[in-house]
Amino acid sequence: MKLSATTHQADDVRMRGFKQRSPVDDIIAWLDKQTITQRNEAINIQDANGRVLAEDVVSQVNIPDFKRSMMDGYAIMAEDAQGASSYNQLPLHIVGKAMPGQAAETAISSGQTVRIMTGAPVPEGADAVLPAENVELHEDHIFIMESVAQGRNIGQIGEDIQSGQSVLQDGRRLRPQDIALLASIGRQTIKVMCRPHVQIIVTGNELLPVGSLPNGYHIVNSNGPMLEALARRDGGHVERSTIIADEPTHLRKAMLNECDVLLLSGGTSVGEEDFVPLLLAELGELKFHGVTMRPSRSTGFGKIGNKLVFLLPGNPVACLCAYDFFAGRSIRQFAGQHTQWPYPQIRKPLKHKISSMIGRTDYARVKLVDEHVESVSVSGAANISSTTQADGFVIIPADSEGYPAQAEVDVFLYDLGY
Amino acid sequence: MKLSATTHQADDVRMRGFKQRSPVDDIIAWLDKQTITQRNEAINIQDANGRVLAEDVVSQVNIPDFKRSMMDGYAIMAEDAQGASSYNQLPLHIVGKAMPGQAAETAISSGQTVRIMTGAPVPEGADAVLPAENVELHEDHIFIMESVAQGRNIGQIGEDIQSGQSVLQDGRRLRPQDIALLASIGRQTIKVMCRPHVQIIVTGNELLPVGSLPNGYHIVNSNGPMLEALARRDGGHVERSTIIADEPTHLRKAMLNECDVLLLSGGTSVGEEDFVPLLLAELGELKFHGVTMRPSRSTGFGKIGNKLVFLLPGNPVACLCAYDFFAGRSIRQFAGQHTQWPYPQIRKPLKHKISSMIGRTDYARVKLVDEHVESVSVSGAANISSTTQADGFVIIPADSEGYPAQAEVDVFLYDLGY
Repeated sequence: MKLSATTHQADDVRMRGFKQRSPVDDIIAWLDKQTITQRNEAINIQDANGRVLAEDVVSQVNIPDFKRSMMDGYAIMAEDAQGASSYNQLPLHIVGKAMPGQAAETAISSGQTVRIMTGAPVPEGADAVLPAENVELHEDHIFIMESVAQGRNIGQIGEDIQSGQSVLQDGRRLRPQDIALLASIGRQTIKVMCRPHVQIIVTGNELLPVGSLPNGYHIVNSNGPMLEALARRDGGHVERSTIIADEPTHLRKAMLNECDVLLLSGGTSVGEEDFVPLLLAELGELKFHGVTMRPSRSTGFGKIGNKLVFLLPGNPVACLCAYDFFAGRSIRQFAGQHTQWPYPQIRKPLKHKISSMIGRTDYARVKLVDEHVESVSVSGAANISSTTQADGFVIIPADSEGYPAQAEVDVFLYDLGY
Repeated sequence: MKLSATTHQADDVRMRGFKQRSPVDDIIAWLDKQTITQRNEAINIQDANGRVLAEDVVSQVNIPDFKRSMMDGYAIMAEDAQGASSYNQLPLHIVGKAMPGQAAETAISSGQTVRIMTGAPVPEGADAVLPAENVELHEDHIFIMESVAQGRNIGQIGEDIQSGQSVLQDGRRLRPQDIALLASIGRQTIKVMCRPHVQIIVTGNELLPVGSLPNGYHIVNSNGPMLEALARRDGGHVERSTIIADEPTHLRKAMLNECDVLLLSGGTSVGEEDFVPLLLAELGELKFHGVTMRPSRSTGFGKIGNKLVFLLPGNPVACLCAYDFFAGRSIRQFAGQHTQWPYPQIRKPLKHKISSMIGRTDYARVKLVDEHVESVSVSGAANISSTTQADGFVIIPADSEGYPAQAEVDVFLYDLGY
């Protein structure tokens, strides 16, 4: 394949744009079919919060595996308390104590009690625990002032978890309390979905590395660090993030590095130095190029072997939008996570109308002002500040011409809220 | 101070419980005053997503710092296009090209054009860019078929960000697009609030380390790994997480380790081996002990020097609840984050009534069944499975006796939703 454009005519043909743009839904349907090759790995449960289970967890033990006291108080035989009241205080002799982690010092028989702490094993003979504040103490006796039901304040064997019980299911996103449960049944490691390996390539001869000051016609790589943050948020493991010049040999080599998801930004449209779509077609498959959406209409999609490849626009707003519509969704799917938008959603009325076009999906940055939603008026996808000044965005689907003023719309908030 | 209880009488006095329980709101008001000593640190912007800014960021540069093309197309003088139409196609001579990162090859004068790529500097003389698809190309000429306004498809200097502009404010939780903005204005590092240093001590002679199987009357430390996950979720840096036996000398030593927030679980109530409240009073201040809430009524609060100390219940549900009501809030405040509950919220009707008591705050675990909210019926705070089976929780505030069936209630969802 010849990639150096030489004539005005050849350049112009490429600059004229996309033969055919594809609807957002078609692309998502294709993407959702590509992310089924999930791997799993065993990790320590202490590292598993937020990860997605790749096994059904069945407990091998009862929790608790002994009758335990639920209170600090006195273990008694419930029948000894029958008929007790403040007018008929019944005495019991304290014959020992029961502490957590130890076998009870002694069994009890009628007329006896054992002082017991929360979590301690209930001594043999006892079938109820009275809270300390409900009895009167006198030297080595307590006086009971109320009757009590059998089993009161005693945690039964297997009450929390039974041996053989399925406690957490494949596909569950683990919560802090799940980690506690896994610890309590004796698990050290747990099988979870792997984080997909993500590689980020930002192309452009005009790009300087992060930490440079913009200089003359050179600008700083900003899509690279943004995509790193986004991919990590969605559960990706960012293996490599590099700037590559608009030069086919270097690009080709970088595109062949192994990973699950390759994010390419810049050089992905149909301009003179947009080698990337041609390279993707050469090395694998360019499945879609061009989307009926705004911004991000130049986004491309394909595969090299099993690697899913996203050609993201170089304009930062379009890059963010295309990532969130498509790449983020796929990364979350690889990691076993939900496909929902990773932004809190609220519903509020529009201050002014928002116009769109039938057949085009729009991503409109908005602000919340006095409980109303207002468009952030900016001149295009090149200005990242439109997304830093915005509180979130509204999606206008392809079957809508937009929304009139006062219409209630769903706003996705950029800030996670905590 | 003498901590070894020797007589039934002495034990009993302590087991009788709390002299006075404090309302949730009083405790929160006190806590909110304790977390004002925030520190900040400079970190690389690539590590700053989700962190909280500790400076006002002012740009030292214009973005862009040159007039740039917003399209792939042709840079022209707008006045050359006056009167152009498909019936009056006006020719322009292509005299060069303009690529991103390079000074334009040549200026243009009337009758001339330069082929230009998105992001490239607009050549001198040009004041508009025509998209490639809107012109006819013929060898080294293009034919314009429509007039165009001055400035069309040209990004002006400082259009995105102006030199001297305040772009991100102190206290902002950084988003992926903020990282892009910081990169583009040339920042390598950024000042953010420090993560508070958190130490976790779980006490109990009955506890085995994570990875053990529960054995006889010994159970596995589950609050430790749960609290680690919670503290990390809320932006804490967990420095140390240990099991300490119920023994004053060891506990005292561990409680004196330096950190911002000390989470102690177990031994925190008023039972015989509950040394921790006494130790806290000895080493610093036990400000509150006992809360009018269910579960978690034994929670305690205090300080040792500047260190904020939380005495969390040993029962896992109560431990989770007390952490989320109090400790998590303080850790987020130390990190500069919001004080909101870190759970998505939805509003749904109750299937059955939920009862509470005036003067007591309740934390009720619930499930969502057929668009209704149902209580998870379990026997108490000892059963962690009540929080793994629940979808979330409902808070019944102190001034409420509960909610009737069909009442709409706010549910906090344990799952973050993505």
